[in-house]
Amino acid sequence: MVRKYDIFELTLNGPKDGNPFVDVDLRAVFTYMNRKHTVSGFYDGNGIYKIRFMPCREGVWKYETQCNVDELNGVTGEFTCTEAAPGEHGPVRVHNQFHFAHDDGTPFYPVGTTAYAWTHQQPEIVEQTLKTLKDSPFNKIRMCVFPKHYVYNLNEPPLYPYEGGLIEGVKAEDIRYAGPAFAGAENTNYKFDYMRFNPNFWRDFETRIAQLRDLGIQADIIIFHPYDRWGFSRMEEPAIQLYLRYLVARLGSFSNVWWSMANEYDLFRGRTEQDWERWAYTIVEWDPYEHLRSIHNCTKLYDHSKGWITHVSIQRIDYHSHVELVAKWRERWQKPVVVDEICYEGNIDHGWGNITGEEMTKRFWDVTVRGGYCTHGETYLRDDEVLWWAKGGWLTGSSPARIAFLRRIVEEMGYIDPKPISPMDWDLTWGYSGRQFTYQSETPFGTMATQAAEKMICYFSFAQPAKRSFMLPPDKKYEIEVIDTWNMTIEKLEGTYSGRVDIKLPGRPYVAVRFTMVGDGSSGWFSHTSLTS
Amino acid sequence: MVRKYDIFELTLNGPKDGNPFVDVDLRAVFTYMNRKHTVSGFYDGNGIYKIRFMPCREGVWKYETQCNVDELNGVTGEFTCTEAAPGEHGPVRVHNQFHFAHDDGTPFYPVGTTAYAWTHQQPEIVEQTLKTLKDSPFNKIRMCVFPKHYVYNLNEPPLYPYEGGLIEGVKAEDIRYAGPAFAGAENTNYKFDYMRFNPNFWRDFETRIAQLRDLGIQADIIIFHPYDRWGFSRMEEPAIQLYLRYLVARLGSFSNVWWSMANEYDLFRGRTEQDWERWAYTIVEWDPYEHLRSIHNCTKLYDHSKGWITHVSIQRIDYHSHVELVAKWRERWQKPVVVDEICYEGNIDHGWGNITGEEMTKRFWDVTVRGGYCTHGETYLRDDEVLWWAKGGWLTGSSPARIAFLRRIVEEMGYIDPKPISPMDWDLTWGYSGRQFTYQSETPFGTMATQAAEKMICYFSFAQPAKRSFMLPPDKKYEIEVIDTWNMTIEKLEGTYSGRVDIKLPGRPYVAVRFTMVGDGSSGWFSHTSLTS
Repeated sequence: MVRKYDIFELTLNGPKDGNPFVDVDLRAVFTYMNRKHTVSGFYDGNGIYKIRFMPCREGVWKYETQCNVDELNGVTGEFTCTEAAPGEHGPVRVHNQFHFAHDDGTPFYPVGTTAYAWTHQQPEIVEQTLKTLKDSPFNKIRMCVFPKHYVYNLNEPPLYPYEGGLIEGVKAEDIRYAGPAFAGAENTNYKFDYMRFNPNFWRDFETRIAQLRDLGIQADIIIFHPYDRWGFSRMEEPAIQLYLRYLVARLGSFSNVWWSMANEYDLFRGRTEQDWERWAYTIVEWDPYEHLRSIHNCTKLYDHSKGWITHVSIQRIDYHSHVELVAKWRERWQKPVVVDEICYEGNIDHGWGNITGEEMTKRFWDVTVRGGYCTHGETYLRDDEVLWWAKGGWLTGSSPARIAFLRRIVEEMGYIDPKPISPMDWDLTWGYSGRQFTYQSETPFGTMATQAAEKMICYFSFAQPAKRSFMLPPDKKYEIEVIDTWNMTIEKLEGTYSGRVDIKLPGRPYVAVRFTMVGDGSSGWFSHTSLTS
Repeated sequence: MVRKYDIFELTLNGPKDGNPFVDVDLRAVFTYMNRKHTVSGFYDGNGIYKIRFMPCREGVWKYETQCNVDELNGVTGEFTCTEAAPGEHGPVRVHNQFHFAHDDGTPFYPVGTTAYAWTHQQPEIVEQTLKTLKDSPFNKIRMCVFPKHYVYNLNEPPLYPYEGGLIEGVKAEDIRYAGPAFAGAENTNYKFDYMRFNPNFWRDFETRIAQLRDLGIQADIIIFHPYDRWGFSRMEEPAIQLYLRYLVARLGSFSNVWWSMANEYDLFRGRTEQDWERWAYTIVEWDPYEHLRSIHNCTKLYDHSKGWITHVSIQRIDYHSHVELVAKWRERWQKPVVVDEICYEGNIDHGWGNITGEEMTKRFWDVTVRGGYCTHGETYLRDDEVLWWAKGGWLTGSSPARIAFLRRIVEEMGYIDPKPISPMDWDLTWGYSGRQFTYQSETPFGTMATQAAEKMICYFSFAQPAKRSFMLPPDKKYEIEVIDTWNMTIEKLEGTYSGRVDIKLPGRPYVAVRFTMVGDGSSGWFSHTSLTS
């Protein structure tokens, strides 16, 4: 018996000789009703072979192995998939064009953070990271498969994904860490056998994925990244294909996996769009669950219209112009937009890592009310150089509490879509949720067709108005809440409101106003987004 | 005897009958050595005619009148122009392509504010405005000739520029002030004779210009604006030509006059670019002093490459993207850039009038380090509705003190020009002053030709780094100051610095670092910009 969205694991004994990682092509076909999934197995060392499968439907599943080694070929069996464990809703998928939901329909609102190399640290730090995540608002984390070589992250990882390591005579402490070794730099200190994985590394890595899953956190797994002194970013085609298939075979059955083809794909030297497309389609081919897929840029946006890309994973490419573009990015690619790098809260000496908690919170709000999703990171200097964005550890910034507050608001509202800017509120950003409708409204520009919705929220960002007038549909009643997004207060105004409303505001920055339809106006025609939120 | 840059005024008696404003064409030719200026006279009522002239060279000037009325024709005389009064440096002109200097070469760094209708208020408020300006950092003020009809500014002015007023039977208190009456709206409440000026209005207005001059403040006179319920924005061509010539004749001789053809020129209905060009050339024709000329936009930038435009007077046209474009605007138009509307510090219910003092200060810095100049305004709600930006009165915001601090820094540095962004400081804005030079520098990207200058300043804007490394020319010595632009502190580091420097920073937003060359490196080759600063 396996619970829905959990992992069925078939363990088989097979040959140890030669190179089982390369020589043995093991698969299994899992069948339920008219569903049929071909799943890759993998070699786990010591003559042990495994096939993992995540059933997404309850009932009896049958399987049969296929292998070029007789003793692993034609193994059959079946198991019953029962109800999902409480709180387990299955993999996240695109929902309503610009949003996300779990496989069982439960809405998922990504609230991301970033700790690229958290699994490559000493165990006590790894455990601390999990503890921090448990108490944080974050339900998605960007993290690398390969260890990371970059500022504030120059330590050697405890484990390597491949057999090999430092070449004879070189000591880790002798290597001069002269800044980032972006992919393509020569490396003469390490030697790895890219045809032989190190199962210890992978067992450790997948334990972390499982721990995240049990915390309800999506692992946005970064398959390649360019911050490398070991050579993992410069592997050649056969090694890459072997890696991708091994990765999917081991990790694809975890319900909380997202595939991020690269961090800053455009910093790799000598890699072409054709390369990224080919590797992405290897993932598409071997992943029967269709986990979310994306690719993340440095200075050059990827063509997110490509068919394999499920959602836009974007890093701002202009230091000043970014969050206000989210609605345009949605328009442009017609996919969910996740702003996966918007600078980090911190105080380091790099422009991407020294914004204030206020600014980080503002960017989260600016993205959210425009119908996008945002990802956090933290880079405060520490004597021990354990900066959250690289190594995990501790969060000390001021934005996470505010992001938790925002998450609560989003969960109350459901999917938020941006409202086109009207002449009256060119300075304001409006997010709508629930059913939208149009009514005729009197404005200084004449009578105009005006959009409204069951739930509406507007955000004043850096502005500090002490008052504002709003036009509500005259025949609907709304409750109004004034939200201080920084001080995390919600002040509900007495009564209900229709037509023109003059509201007193705090005269401080970072204020939002939420309008929620009540009474007659809202009965009988909630949309499905409202029903599931 | 007239002091240089002061006004020589010739008063003549002439006909009172008919319409002297239209019927009498009075001019004078002023001659000094090979200089010859033709100046328009004007009718001041009661049979009094005046010709005003501002001499910009010391020595004996001669004049002779020309008029279509015999008794005013052929009047001759001379006067001696002596040294300018202390502190009087003459009209401001464009200097060094992107900057300004007075006629005598003294640098002028515009630090603007805005009080559109301050001269149209009751005398006690007007006097209060002058008192406030005296203690403020502002040396330029944007102000309208015509009274203004707009939110928070609906009162009737004490004086009209023309004969006429409310039509019989209409009382000021009966007029329904239904929002802005942008130019082109019908007006049935007032009637003016656009062929007959009201000398009382003009005497009052020019008194205010003189008072500004005596405070060392440039009057950026807005010739047309669209916020109008009287009809002044809808005058027809003969009236406009008469108005422009009268304006120049009365005010052109004030050393502190700038001509702003319009505020938000693109809000006038039915006015074409040809109209604005024609009216601008009327100013060019009648103004012998070549006072600065500009035109200010709402949502559509004017073509600032036009020959008559001396400097770019710009209002941001995007709510989010503006100050970071200043260096590009300089490039584009090859003229000084004055950001004459960048939102106002305040808390009103309009997006253009509710930014914080921090944000206003940041925008000033962001504009300044990019080699531009910035203009302030204040819109805090008051029970008496005397908001500075419209009526003048009092300043209560937090930005003016910081703008005074910035003004001091600019005056110390001299003209600031932006440095092109290098790969190392894509997040930083650099302003350079004094002589610039290139040297070879070691960077993570290899040896690169790098620009430096005698005086350099970088601004961290919203970022809050706790440290930063800088590369200085290895063979020059610099003093370094860490400037907290919000708390208005300057911390000078001990000693002098060359080559790579690691600096501890406050870890707060709004910090700048200034580098000033000392010792050998700086001797013998200061540029003229340094000498005059």
